[in-house]
Amino acid sequence: MEKTFDTLLARMQELRDLGGLIGLATWDQETYLPPKGAESRAHQLSTLQGIHHERLVDPRLGELLAWAADNKSLTADQRAMARVLTQERDRAVKVPKALVQALAEAQSRGLGAWREARKQNRFAVFQPALERMLALRREQADAYGHDGERYNALLEGYEPGMRVARLTPVLSALRDNLIPLVAAIQAAPRKVGDFFQGRRFDPEAQWRFTLRLLGDMGFDLEAGRQDKSIHPFSSGQHPTDVRLTTNIEEGSLTALLSTLHEGGHGLYEQGFSAAHYRTPLANAPSMGLHESQSRLWENLVGRSRAFWTHYFPALREAFPEALAGVDLDTFHAALNRVTPSFIRVEADEVTYNLHIVLRYELELLLIRDELPLGELPSAWNERMRRFLGVTPPDDTQGVLQDIHWAWGEFGYFPTYSLGNLYAASIYRAAQRALPNLEEGLARGELRPLRDWLRTHVHSEGYRQPAEELVRKVTGQGLTDADFLAYLKSKFGALYGVAL
Amino acid sequence: MEKTFDTLLARMQELRDLGGLIGLATWDQETYLPPKGAESRAHQLSTLQGIHHERLVDPRLGELLAWAADNKSLTADQRAMARVLTQERDRAVKVPKALVQALAEAQSRGLGAWREARKQNRFAVFQPALERMLALRREQADAYGHDGERYNALLEGYEPGMRVARLTPVLSALRDNLIPLVAAIQAAPRKVGDFFQGRRFDPEAQWRFTLRLLGDMGFDLEAGRQDKSIHPFSSGQHPTDVRLTTNIEEGSLTALLSTLHEGGHGLYEQGFSAAHYRTPLANAPSMGLHESQSRLWENLVGRSRAFWTHYFPALREAFPEALAGVDLDTFHAALNRVTPSFIRVEADEVTYNLHIVLRYELELLLIRDELPLGELPSAWNERMRRFLGVTPPDDTQGVLQDIHWAWGEFGYFPTYSLGNLYAASIYRAAQRALPNLEEGLARGELRPLRDWLRTHVHSEGYRQPAEELVRKVTGQGLTDADFLAYLKSKFGALYGVAL
Repeated sequence: MEKTFDTLLARMQELRDLGGLIGLATWDQETYLPPKGAESRAHQLSTLQGIHHERLVDPRLGELLAWAADNKSLTADQRAMARVLTQERDRAVKVPKALVQALAEAQSRGLGAWREARKQNRFAVFQPALERMLALRREQADAYGHDGERYNALLEGYEPGMRVARLTPVLSALRDNLIPLVAAIQAAPRKVGDFFQGRRFDPEAQWRFTLRLLGDMGFDLEAGRQDKSIHPFSSGQHPTDVRLTTNIEEGSLTALLSTLHEGGHGLYEQGFSAAHYRTPLANAPSMGLHESQSRLWENLVGRSRAFWTHYFPALREAFPEALAGVDLDTFHAALNRVTPSFIRVEADEVTYNLHIVLRYELELLLIRDELPLGELPSAWNERMRRFLGVTPPDDTQGVLQDIHWAWGEFGYFPTYSLGNLYAASIYRAAQRALPNLEEGLARGELRPLRDWLRTHVHSEGYRQPAEELVRKVTGQGLTDADFLAYLKSKFGALYGVAL
Repeated sequence: MEKTFDTLLARMQELRDLGGLIGLATWDQETYLPPKGAESRAHQLSTLQGIHHERLVDPRLGELLAWAADNKSLTADQRAMARVLTQERDRAVKVPKALVQALAEAQSRGLGAWREARKQNRFAVFQPALERMLALRREQADAYGHDGERYNALLEGYEPGMRVARLTPVLSALRDNLIPLVAAIQAAPRKVGDFFQGRRFDPEAQWRFTLRLLGDMGFDLEAGRQDKSIHPFSSGQHPTDVRLTTNIEEGSLTALLSTLHEGGHGLYEQGFSAAHYRTPLANAPSMGLHESQSRLWENLVGRSRAFWTHYFPALREAFPEALAGVDLDTFHAALNRVTPSFIRVEADEVTYNLHIVLRYELELLLIRDELPLGELPSAWNERMRRFLGVTPPDDTQGVLQDIHWAWGEFGYFPTYSLGNLYAASIYRAAQRALPNLEEGLARGELRPLRDWLRTHVHSEGYRQPAEELVRKVTGQGLTDADFLAYLKSKFGALYGVAL
């Protein structure tokens, strides 16, 4: 085997091509696959993932990467490509095949048990499958290796470089700041009612509006598309083929915000540098950073008064009946209504991260084996009361609401909060760099923000870890300061209260 | 490596999974891929095809197949699976990698040159690329091995078991029978005008009608789907995931016949035995036999008076303006209008096979190197005059009309005629087995025919070569007798002339 960068590059490209095809087959599964094709698709995906794994752990790739690691003649980008792939490969090599298979089986059983438990509305039905999954994930964490904190080894799979010792103080402080903030908003004299109750928004008009938003924010619809699926998601087969989905409900306008969210992910994928295509650098450095881009467009932009200053007249034209007599202020307040609730995915910007901290604290205890599984529902409900002042009426609206643990995803939840915190800091940096940003948004000018993000965040790809990139862009690393300042200013004004 | 049938089966399944994924990526390319994603998709497909090839030629698969060939303890189906895969593998092994790459390059160049030649309307622009492609295909035929007739080695790739010595007499006799038949219809006193000229058929209503036809003919829309593409095609990822496309034009109803055509292919794919899923037996034994099913539904059923006896009232309801005052006989005659024309894909049932015989004769000469390439356009036009009495006004409407040669497909065209001949013979066998077939069609009962085809043709898969299966089903092998009898009876009645 010839040891040249071209040889290594060819292997990187093959892996990326296979990854893109896994993305396509998964996208198709959620959009166009006929129902009876589910089993054959599962076989095809498993075959493809098996080949991807086999190519990744191939010892000859290991030799090429070792050669590249020592090679001073490579460019900085070439070294970064080798470094990123080495990290991915090292993790893959460490997990024995038997454990990979056991995890796949546990996922499939976990999913089945979780669905049955929701049907019966009883956590106990899910408990044995969750017990097994936790045991396997602990075993996997030990296989990866860690400094005594198993959770770090799992977190690394979603948020490379992040550690419990760095994350816990930030999330605990965030929690301690948010609890009184929620209470203050609850106690504010100004109230916001349930605006959407009883209104109907034509689905066709919603679909057209989402496409208009995607075009306006600079998502290239010649290098991507939007389709419909039950749960919205984004899937990057390649930066020139980025697929988003949305789910349109007649009774709300969540599809619009969901499109801004997925569009934010999509802009990240489309914004990778052409020089990095088909290499490990055409990747976000972490899920938290990827999420920062979706949250930035959904929340910082899409729930702002400036944004709706421009779009509200068009929205009223698109839904003349549903929005008859509604003014901008009423609509903007409705989009930002704060209500402590049971369900994470329906939570507003203020309460959302309390749902995440709750999950983070619990999964940390579970991975550490410090919480008997039978006590999980009560531990969940106790925190719901303490953080949000509400008690879930049953398990389905409590501990059983998310699919993540059934699927074995421990370490994933905190990336949502990291996304929110990074989004606020990055948006603040954009405000400093683009002094007329808000005035532009109020005129419907979304491109300057996209271009700034592309230059400073997206085109960097995976050259450096997430927090290092954030520090480069904002001048500081992970912090809750920008996020809390944003919440206090926005919701203070909306609820007419000093926060 | 353990030599068991399960080990072999796992490899068969992997190959089928990869084949299904190649099908999905190709389907997506023609339906939903964003335009700028073309280049990345080409990379992904090339990677996937490379892996498929690598797995197919793997020497350990060869050892497993050799073991299976000698093994008397295997069932008949297991031996057939091994036999079919051995044939495929032997051919793949024989072509050197350098030739595979040269062919891929020649295809890409051939396609480019063909498009440019059509734009300039000059065969000479295409000639050098075609010359190169012919040289490579001759080289490939020699690599496959043959009995002195190179064309046989190429034909084998589309129609396994078929030989020039068997095919030429049948197609020559067909030609000699069709030429006077066309002339007699031309001379008939009854004339059929261009019915569709100036009429407009609502595209949405056409789309709904095509879906109704698919449902009625028993195509399972839970195990398949229909989408739109520029050129209609069918693509079987798996018998439970069969994808058809159609192309709707406002000015005609060809979409309906095209859906019946692709639906015929689709029923074949859905009809494979579940015991053969993910093995080489879940395959048609030849392209000609596959085509027989599409032609049977498009022509024998879809252009029959019985079929439209049931559907014409619904058609008039679907297109009340376009079909105002039109009666069944007029419409049925319009669907079966015979006109010698330049373009194969627009040809009627009577003239169609003359277009094919022309191409077969020419490509046989080309592969034998018995026709100087510069003379190809005049040889084409001379045959057009002799067979159909018309002279193409230019190369684009003559020798440049089909994409097949640009793509290097020599040996493909005759499978279209084999499809027509097999379809007529199989339909005749169905008529014998189902005495009330036509009366049923006139009541819209398409399922008995589908069920009969499923039992006698589809579920057999690739247990035996095409002609052997046809012999089992119809009592005789390849013949033009049923097809000619069908044409004479149908078009004699339509044109009011004894044929």
